[in-house]
Amino acid sequence: MTKNDTPVPVCSPVPGFRAASAASGMRYRDRPDLGLIVADRPCGSAGVFTRNTCAAAPVVWSRQVTDARAILVNAGQANAQTGERGRADCAASAEAAGKLAGVPAGRVLLASTGIIGQRMNMPAMLAALPALAGSLSEDGLDGFSRAILTTDTRPKAFRTETDLGARGRFTLWGCVKGAGMIAPDMATLLAFVLTDVPAESGYLKSVLGKAAELSFNRITVDGDTSTNDTLLALSSSAGGGAPLASSASPGADRFEEALFRLMESLARSVVEDAEGATKTVTVAVRGAETPGQALAAARTVACSPLVKTAFFGEDANWGRILCALGRSGAAFDPYRVDLYLDGVHWVKDGVDNGREEDAQKVMKLASYTLTADLNRGSHDAAVLTCDLSHEYVTINGSYRS
Amino acid sequence: MTKNDTPVPVCSPVPGFRAASAASGMRYRDRPDLGLIVADRPCGSAGVFTRNTCAAAPVVWSRQVTDARAILVNAGQANAQTGERGRADCAASAEAAGKLAGVPAGRVLLASTGIIGQRMNMPAMLAALPALAGSLSEDGLDGFSRAILTTDTRPKAFRTETDLGARGRFTLWGCVKGAGMIAPDMATLLAFVLTDVPAESGYLKSVLGKAAELSFNRITVDGDTSTNDTLLALSSSAGGGAPLASSASPGADRFEEALFRLMESLARSVVEDAEGATKTVTVAVRGAETPGQALAAARTVACSPLVKTAFFGEDANWGRILCALGRSGAAFDPYRVDLYLDGVHWVKDGVDNGREEDAQKVMKLASYTLTADLNRGSHDAAVLTCDLSHEYVTINGSYRS
Repeated sequence: MTKNDTPVPVCSPVPGFRAASAASGMRYRDRPDLGLIVADRPCGSAGVFTRNTCAAAPVVWSRQVTDARAILVNAGQANAQTGERGRADCAASAEAAGKLAGVPAGRVLLASTGIIGQRMNMPAMLAALPALAGSLSEDGLDGFSRAILTTDTRPKAFRTETDLGARGRFTLWGCVKGAGMIAPDMATLLAFVLTDVPAESGYLKSVLGKAAELSFNRITVDGDTSTNDTLLALSSSAGGGAPLASSASPGADRFEEALFRLMESLARSVVEDAEGATKTVTVAVRGAETPGQALAAARTVACSPLVKTAFFGEDANWGRILCALGRSGAAFDPYRVDLYLDGVHWVKDGVDNGREEDAQKVMKLASYTLTADLNRGSHDAAVLTCDLSHEYVTINGSYRS
Repeated sequence: MTKNDTPVPVCSPVPGFRAASAASGMRYRDRPDLGLIVADRPCGSAGVFTRNTCAAAPVVWSRQVTDARAILVNAGQANAQTGERGRADCAASAEAAGKLAGVPAGRVLLASTGIIGQRMNMPAMLAALPALAGSLSEDGLDGFSRAILTTDTRPKAFRTETDLGARGRFTLWGCVKGAGMIAPDMATLLAFVLTDVPAESGYLKSVLGKAAELSFNRITVDGDTSTNDTLLALSSSAGGGAPLASSASPGADRFEEALFRLMESLARSVVEDAEGATKTVTVAVRGAETPGQALAAARTVACSPLVKTAFFGEDANWGRILCALGRSGAAFDPYRVDLYLDGVHWVKDGVDNGREEDAQKVMKLASYTLTADLNRGSHDAAVLTCDLSHEYVTINGSYRS
């Protein structure tokens, strides 16, 4: 893969898709809060959804959509725990947006983010839809990526062009929204991926799930999982050629690699923009007895409030990391563990290695890797996390107000 | 049980025990950090210890002590991840303290709290021990309860006198230290219980474990579990009579009830003094399908950073509670759930019940109960938690410094 293939945070058209955004006033004032994407030459569609028992109405709606051709998103109201009326509001939204975009309601995917338990401001949404649909354009993705935000401080979108060999070059684009409530098990509120690589829905669903497992499900902000977590992907046939149907299809390997890298960039951007976060830390566990133990150990360290406040305080307090490893359920000998901060061998065989000054320097960086080698087996896992700051408490102590 | 039996935060002698405290300068300056308790007429002893894989040297030491007659505690240095030298320091401490107190080293229980990974300042401890042992007195428990503190803002000790029927009145006393790192699975750093009810060690161990399960293991501050968590109990034969040997022994039922209430008071005092906490909230789950699901649901809500920051912000944002219940693994219908804040029926059948103003009033209290009725089965559980405040981040971002 050449340097040009690296996902970069820019927005430009994806052949076969038009997008638009609008400030509907559903909840926010004078701020874009409604986004629409329409596929002109649809091919495949796939979704990955929250496993929360209290899944929101738009999640329930989108789960049963097949052969999707459009995505309608609103920010500010989650349409979760809204009962029968929330489900009716979904049907009405899809119906109205679909009609304006020339798409059957049953092919309109929905996603919402915001306050749980409030009914959608349907009059405001319905009033805004005609202008929204009327402004659909190939240049609308940038606005779309802004209209889905809540406590995010910036839009998070990436676009990459990939050479699929004999198939030629194709485009992959994705954007994401998510700042708090980010946890394993579908670790973002809302993410959208578009491509002009024609791909069948079944294949798209399988690779999307695999890529989510290694990207969004490997980040954590506060260990919470939302009622609305949704990842949607649409592929267009604009790029031409026979649709990818399986990993054995020509070019599928490069497509999958590019998709994974795009989603990794999206996931990382969520942690970098996490509520109040000042640092991004990769927690890598090596040498675990099983893959499950490697992941459990990495997640326990990455989620520990004591570890996360130590990251914030730039306090080279490795005892808190050993302590978190020790309650993770992973099997290890406390006196065989090595800890590294980037290249600094911080703890050797479970005891201080006399490198505190160097460790402290690494902890002052905006981004670094903490590696715990359990020296027990051969399994590794990594989880991306952030620090726990005053600002997180401020934001979440007053989010609704 | 009469009102006089309610555990109250006072310190006064427990027949059969002497205690002392000293400022050793092991880590802190001019602050009591060393405590000693000696049983003059020992009877039974029992302990409950952390399950953390990285259990500290004093935990390893105390696990193998039988027929204990003394407890030596230090605050400021955890003696965890200190390897062979840490174990040798334990042996030397027990030897020195035992010699001065007239107790074999093998009968001296040890407990430490503080920074993980630092070797104990043995010269300072050994220099302080003679004066410490020399000042043992029946009035020393108050000082002991202060010498075990780290980031605690106040000593936490309770004493109760209980009428055991034909046996007459007996004393139960306990003190606790713990402010952060409080979680299920042995939810306190250090707790000590003394009684002049003669009780055999086996019996004491069994009732201590049961009482810990329903008290210390039902509180949470930040979900972390320490390397040093230790709960120790000593009984003296000073009260006279045949030792309690089982729950069938005359008076055992009242003793167990009093012990449970004492430990409940100690556990509550830990949450009330939690790092930076401004509120104490009981999270009660009712109507779960199984006892395990009831506890998992209560713990998930009680540990959620989003719920805890909403408690801090006094924000009646019930969606975060439903959201946490929804990822707890407990089975329920989101539209059958009821939520109550004290007596206010906040959420009915999963949707807002129009009581936000009343709910807000409850959330302004320093202590209240959040009840989630899943309306699914017949099992209940409750967990005591606190809010997540700016102060928590401040304390833990700079604990070592």
